[in-house]
Amino acid sequence: MDNWRTRITNHDDDSIWYCGHDVAGLMRTETFAGTTFLLHHGRLPSDGERRLFEAILVGIADHGPGSPSAMSARTVATGNRVAPEAAVAAGILAIGDAHGGAGWACQRLLSQAIDRVTREGVSDDMAADDIVRAEIAAGRRLPGFGHRTHSQDPRTAVLLSLAGELGVAGAGVRMVLAFERAVARQVKPLPINVDAAMAAILCDMGFPPIVAKLMFIVGRAAGLSAEVFEEYTRERPMRVKVPVVYDGPPARRT
Amino acid sequence: MDNWRTRITNHDDDSIWYCGHDVAGLMRTETFAGTTFLLHHGRLPSDGERRLFEAILVGIADHGPGSPSAMSARTVATGNRVAPEAAVAAGILAIGDAHGGAGWACQRLLSQAIDRVTREGVSDDMAADDIVRAEIAAGRRLPGFGHRTHSQDPRTAVLLSLAGELGVAGAGVRMVLAFERAVARQVKPLPINVDAAMAAILCDMGFPPIVAKLMFIVGRAAGLSAEVFEEYTRERPMRVKVPVVYDGPPARRT
Amino acid sequence: MDNWRTRITNHDDDSIWYCGHDVAGLMRTETFAGTTFLLHHGRLPSDGERRLFEAILVGIADHGPGSPSAMSARTVATGNRVAPEAAVAAGILAIGDAHGGAGWACQRLLSQAIDRVTREGVSDDMAADDIVRAEIAAGRRLPGFGHRTHSQDPRTAVLLSLAGELGVAGAGVRMVLAFERAVARQVKPLPINVDAAMAAILCDMGFPPIVAKLMFIVGRAAGLSAEVFEEYTRERPMRVKVPVVYDGPPARRT
Amino acid sequence: MDNWRTRITNHDDDSIWYCGHDVAGLMRTETFAGTTFLLHHGRLPSDGERRLFEAILVGIADHGPGSPSAMSARTVATGNRVAPEAAVAAGILAIGDAHGGAGWACQRLLSQAIDRVTREGVSDDMAADDIVRAEIAAGRRLPGFGHRTHSQDPRTAVLLSLAGELGVAGAGVRMVLAFERAVARQVKPLPINVDAAMAAILCDMGFPPIVAKLMFIVGRAAGLSAEVFEEYTRERPMRVKVPVVYDGPPARRT
Repeated sequence: MDNWRTRITNHDDDSIWYCGHDVAGLMRTETFAGTTFLLHHGRLPSDGERRLFEAILVGIADHGPGSPSAMSARTVATGNRVAPEAAVAAGILAIGDAHGGAGWACQRLLSQAIDRVTREGVSDDMAADDIVRAEIAAGRRLPGFGHRTHSQDPRTAVLLSLAGELGVAGAGVRMVLAFERAVARQVKPLPINVDAAMAAILCDMGFPPIVAKLMFIVGRAAGLSAEVFEEYTRERPMRVKVPVVYDGPPARRT
Repeated sequence: MDNWRTRITNHDDDSIWYCGHDVAGLMRTETFAGTTFLLHHGRLPSDGERRLFEAILVGIADHGPGSPSAMSARTVATGNRVAPEAAVAAGILAIGDAHGGAGWACQRLLSQAIDRVTREGVSDDMAADDIVRAEIAAGRRLPGFGHRTHSQDPRTAVLLSLAGELGVAGAGVRMVLAFERAVARQVKPLPINVDAAMAAILCDMGFPPIVAKLMFIVGRAAGLSAEVFEEYTRERPMRVKVPVVYDGPPARRT
Repeated sequence: MDNWRTRITNHDDDSIWYCGHDVAGLMRTETFAGTTFLLHHGRLPSDGERRLFEAILVGIADHGPGSPSAMSARTVATGNRVAPEAAVAAGILAIGDAHGGAGWACQRLLSQAIDRVTREGVSDDMAADDIVRAEIAAGRRLPGFGHRTHSQDPRTAVLLSLAGELGVAGAGVRMVLAFERAVARQVKPLPINVDAAMAAILCDMGFPPIVAKLMFIVGRAAGLSAEVFEEYTRERPMRVKVPVVYDGPPARRT
Repeated sequence: MDNWRTRITNHDDDSIWYCGHDVAGLMRTETFAGTTFLLHHGRLPSDGERRLFEAILVGIADHGPGSPSAMSARTVATGNRVAPEAAVAAGILAIGDAHGGAGWACQRLLSQAIDRVTREGVSDDMAADDIVRAEIAAGRRLPGFGHRTHSQDPRTAVLLSLAGELGVAGAGVRMVLAFERAVARQVKPLPINVDAAMAAILCDMGFPPIVAKLMFIVGRAAGLSAEVFEEYTRERPMRVKVPVVYDGPPARRT
């Protein structure tokens, strides 16, 4: 079998290193969010980056039992009392394109627009307008704008103002604001949600688009774990009921 | 359909609260590890508890591509390039009884022993001896002792000394040390590994045993995400090969 | 890396064999259920065994969207439109101890009771009575008896009568009937459900208890696939709503 | 909560119906493959369709421990001995785009080409040539052609000849042969593999493209179950080892 290679974690008999940093030292001084940054970036965050990374993961951590991920985690937990890992994993599996996938999609569009600004020297607003136009023409909604339960996503303002205060905001944050203006011009005013705010900031920290999806997963894993824990401790097995109406072919006589 | 009830997360149009704490505020001041503590405990950690919780999650975060969870996450990632959630979830599914499950099992035994000390007034060492004897008699290995790749688990000393320094250590830490002495007496000296150290400390923070398993999942989710990210960015699809020998019935002539 | 060994499937450049049987031949003459029998047993089924194996898998295949497995598969499908494998897998993860796990548990008890009859020469009824008594004493319900939506499980009669007609019924079927009498004597009349009927027949075919769980998974995979397919074709993403009531700590002023 | 509606499975206290067919009757007379057809199509298969559906599922059922799905199922099984559902699910999660996804992709292209023939009256070969050209221009490999371990996929000939013999072959089978000729003209001779053969036949049975992916999952679930069963019965926990080389940043002195 070929060797598997990695640049992330190494260990010998008495030490473990993450990207060259001794884990014993990290355990004493680094946060879990900072370590997560390190594992994905290969370097430790600056103080501002660490604070923003905490804020992203805290903001993403849970949204109650009604989100598809929590609902599937809890539903699995009603049938499976021996394997909490199965319930958490089922929750993560719901983090697809329609739920928790907007950050990835949005960051791809932000990167595209920023590249064009860099390459062609067009303005942020022109680049944003063209992206929004193309998404509309393709019959898609701009990912990361609007929210099904909030008219203003309360996490967005915190992330964007922290990004400004801490000096992390750059081309990504500027571009997501240009997207917001372009949407308002071409469709109607739609607020930036947590997915787009997170995408913009991860972009400014130097992460590629897929990391927006991965951080949604890592952050939400904490909430899914808590949801499963509450299901196990407060509810009995098989309690979940859903009202079903059958509207298929009638029963036959054979 | 019956209502689903929760004590964890609530939201209205313009706010989200975790156990009554406004998420916008937590994003500015709390860490992700502290938030994870809150979601599972219903209250924020003390400073000492937060530092220990960070240390636990940092220490658990990754152990390289050779652990079963990372290996299955990466193997799924070689076949599935559109759904990173599938790869992370597959990694989590490997966190069963034999891998990442020792903390849960160990904390159950610690709780049992501590209960007996409280109820019957026996010494820690007597309670520990009886537990170890019963495990041996049942043909089981004491969970949380020894490690397949470390003769001394480098994370144990950090956790136990931090727990002492920060005033978190209590009956759980005392009992895990009693277990260590009992194992040495009855079998041979075997070091406390990260699972048992974590179990003892979570016990002293007031968490029930299943939280040791859940925190392994939450912490390792960060490492699995990084492993999948590296697989996607450095390796090509379907690269994984395993040498197979068939030793079943020979091919028949039909 | 050590070789992985297998007795199941072998292949070279131009052939594939399942337990020594050429797949090209099986594709022309064997059924999928018969092949599933082969992959788990190492030999092809007799005609009677094949018919019963079909009946088991047909009977298990689906039970509508309201079972936890279908509900979690569909919930994942509302959030994940790119990876149907994630939705089917989430459904399978709900097949734990409380849902779809009764066959495994029941078959273990049947085996125990049959072993005792063989070893000690006691009657079926005495062996069954002791098992049922022990389960009650341990505060457990006898697995495989009663059903949450059927007062008589309609699949049981078919399986047990087919097992008799086709000459497959043996010690397993006799013992499950003894269990039924013991439950009626000690608790109240409770019908044998599909899990216990399946367990008895798989036992008589020579399969160990875990195969009852595995066949539930294999059979139900067909129904979960159909449920996911219907969700994708009839419903829009994120449609699932659950009524949530928050009953935790009130929102704080910070 | 809104009602969930379904056309698949209905039940009352003493009966279960799949698409209007009484399950008790299906258990006596229908095969599992035929039932799977019913659950996805809403009608029972003809005799020829049933035979082909059996052949598809039999041919897909397993390919040994070296495929990514079996490898991840077994790797999870080494860490998780209490939840075989977790191991089977992890195997299914590897059935993504690169492994087991070619049928879905191929059937989409077949449908596109057939639609064009119908609408524009072009020849099969012209439609196929344009598709192949477009795929090459986009830098993609034509899905369903070539196989990493077989120079000729042994399952293809069986499926295509059965489809002819049994009168199931139609526009789908004709078009996959046109694709084969187009590939040979534009690239080099590449054999139709089982994914493309299955896609063509499912197309001729009236299934949409996603069913090719779903049938891969349903068929392979049987093999994954057998692989997990063998792992549990023949191997010890945590046996899996992979040779890892660390090539990241060197250990730092802090």
